[in-house]
Amino acid sequence: MRLRGDMASIRGYVPGHQPADDGWVKLNTNESPTASPAAIRAMRASADESIRLYPDPASSALCTAAARRHDVAENQVVFGNGSDDLLNLIVRVACDPGDRVVAATPSYSLYPVLAALSGCEIRQVPLSGSFDLPVRQMAAARGKVTFVASPNNPAGTHYTPDALRWLAARVNLLVVDEAYVDFARADNVALLREFQNVCITRSFSKGFGLAGLRLGYALTSPMLADALMRVKDSYNVSRIAQAAGLAALSDIDWAMRHWEAIRQRRDAFATMMAERFGLKVHPSEANFVFVELAGYDAAGVQQNLANQRILVRRFVDDTRIANAIRISIGSEKDMRALEDVLGVVLDGQRTGGVTGADG
Amino acid sequence: MRLRGDMASIRGYVPGHQPADDGWVKLNTNESPTASPAAIRAMRASADESIRLYPDPASSALCTAAARRHDVAENQVVFGNGSDDLLNLIVRVACDPGDRVVAATPSYSLYPVLAALSGCEIRQVPLSGSFDLPVRQMAAARGKVTFVASPNNPAGTHYTPDALRWLAARVNLLVVDEAYVDFARADNVALLREFQNVCITRSFSKGFGLAGLRLGYALTSPMLADALMRVKDSYNVSRIAQAAGLAALSDIDWAMRHWEAIRQRRDAFATMMAERFGLKVHPSEANFVFVELAGYDAAGVQQNLANQRILVRRFVDDTRIANAIRISIGSEKDMRALEDVLGVVLDGQRTGGVTGADG
Repeated sequence: MRLRGDMASIRGYVPGHQPADDGWVKLNTNESPTASPAAIRAMRASADESIRLYPDPASSALCTAAARRHDVAENQVVFGNGSDDLLNLIVRVACDPGDRVVAATPSYSLYPVLAALSGCEIRQVPLSGSFDLPVRQMAAARGKVTFVASPNNPAGTHYTPDALRWLAARVNLLVVDEAYVDFARADNVALLREFQNVCITRSFSKGFGLAGLRLGYALTSPMLADALMRVKDSYNVSRIAQAAGLAALSDIDWAMRHWEAIRQRRDAFATMMAERFGLKVHPSEANFVFVELAGYDAAGVQQNLANQRILVRRFVDDTRIANAIRISIGSEKDMRALEDVLGVVLDGQRTGGVTGADG
Repeated sequence: MRLRGDMASIRGYVPGHQPADDGWVKLNTNESPTASPAAIRAMRASADESIRLYPDPASSALCTAAARRHDVAENQVVFGNGSDDLLNLIVRVACDPGDRVVAATPSYSLYPVLAALSGCEIRQVPLSGSFDLPVRQMAAARGKVTFVASPNNPAGTHYTPDALRWLAARVNLLVVDEAYVDFARADNVALLREFQNVCITRSFSKGFGLAGLRLGYALTSPMLADALMRVKDSYNVSRIAQAAGLAALSDIDWAMRHWEAIRQRRDAFATMMAERFGLKVHPSEANFVFVELAGYDAAGVQQNLANQRILVRRFVDDTRIANAIRISIGSEKDMRALEDVLGVVLDGQRTGGVTGADG
């Protein structure tokens, strides 16, 4: 049996560790410490005999609610089985084999995987040391699709419409992955009123605490939305996800309180890390912080925390950031558990010199 | 903004009509009249705060349960967001652009859509008038992927390992789509013990009455399973679907009683259609029957039934079967509602001559 010619070189996306057992302080995959209560109630209420029927292929009620939330037209919204589903579809509808996909690095490591799956070349443009977006180099790379995650992963740096407008005017298709934007000061939806070639993706995993549900959507021009609708799996969003997502969008008050609580906890944690431990924490507008461990061995810190059942994430493929850790903002209790052990863990992992991106 | 070069010619799969309101006798999309009660209980029980966490990317517990059900190894099982997700992934891992995909026609109309999405040529080999599989022509078409739905759609014809063994030995990759096989006398899993190049797909939509949940799986060689795992979305199956699917597989007694009830109702309905109305009903091993309407106008019959809020499906793209209707096997009450109005509806739709595939 022969498979596609490049199958041996296709590497899947490697997700963060998802332990099968309980009792972990899990700060490695940017999950929320709480889920939308309205969504949980809707899941329970919709768990009945109606599950025998196919879901609405167009997720129409969800499109209406999302269009209202963002003040766009309903035919500018496409729902998917998580925003990963939509990122995948965007590359499929935009790219022919051999086309180029452009993304910053470091960023979400799914983008190069999706490019490879569609037989495309990936051009990864390095971010500056302070994670500014290299818009000139990204435009010059002339991608069929250009990905910008904002807030970006793993540093939490957010880019505003002012920063992205220049890029949107110069590239074929600008995808702004706003999986974390609910924790930022503002979003980039205003770009949709100026540009036909901008696509914004959103997730329910973080802002609504529904990572286990799989639900996300794209906001874009009617033309690109139509193309995405034509290539998606017909029944890509389950009945339960449609009911829960609709309930989550209906209880936006809970969500706004949740976002504000995470922002305050994030900023307090970042201040504590700098003041108590003298660590460099990058300014974040997401539900995580990225901490440079100059003077410490980051691999050892991660392992020692894991030994105490605290998970954080490290990105070993990029040497510029391999001596840093990304810490999700969990509950108050989670953050205190981490703070309580961090002093001893750091003391045990001092290195002779200063290492890391700023070393 | 430029999209892929062939975007204008990409036609999405057109699903059957899914009415938004209640009160329909819905016999058009092969949904089950009942859902697995164990699955519904599991959905309700798992609708809690744990939805904030990502699901197991590998659906490990489900793989274990499915491996036990079919007596294969766990690394021969891959779960997806409905079996459509897996059919899509199979074409993606097997095909380079320009490769050929082979399927019988009429069959599931998603296969040509998936081929087009991957930039492949589709070769559709006509089935005989009695829906026998043209294995010689299919092998001669030399596809990178060869699709066989068994039981086939829309006629319900089932093909056994004896029929498929010859084909499996001659094609690159044989995909046996067993979405409806729970209602047949036997399945084709035995082929996996003989061939590395066979992939069998299964669905929870029909046999377990969970079309709204989105859950399916592939059974294949460890090599192809590994390839599918690498290209699937990381978190492609929600926590709820994993919990519900596991419960459904655990209560196989309910499922077996359900399958037998549908089989008996199907056969009784087919007999009634032949004896009372003199219609030709193709032998079916699925949860639907395909009825030739020779002497009647099938479009008129479908429309008149819809006027009485009874939905059945017609396939207008293939002239050989355009004067027939596919009727899903619903509840006793559903089938009686259809029988009660059919005499009057048929009387109003007589044509002068005899038309249809057997005309």
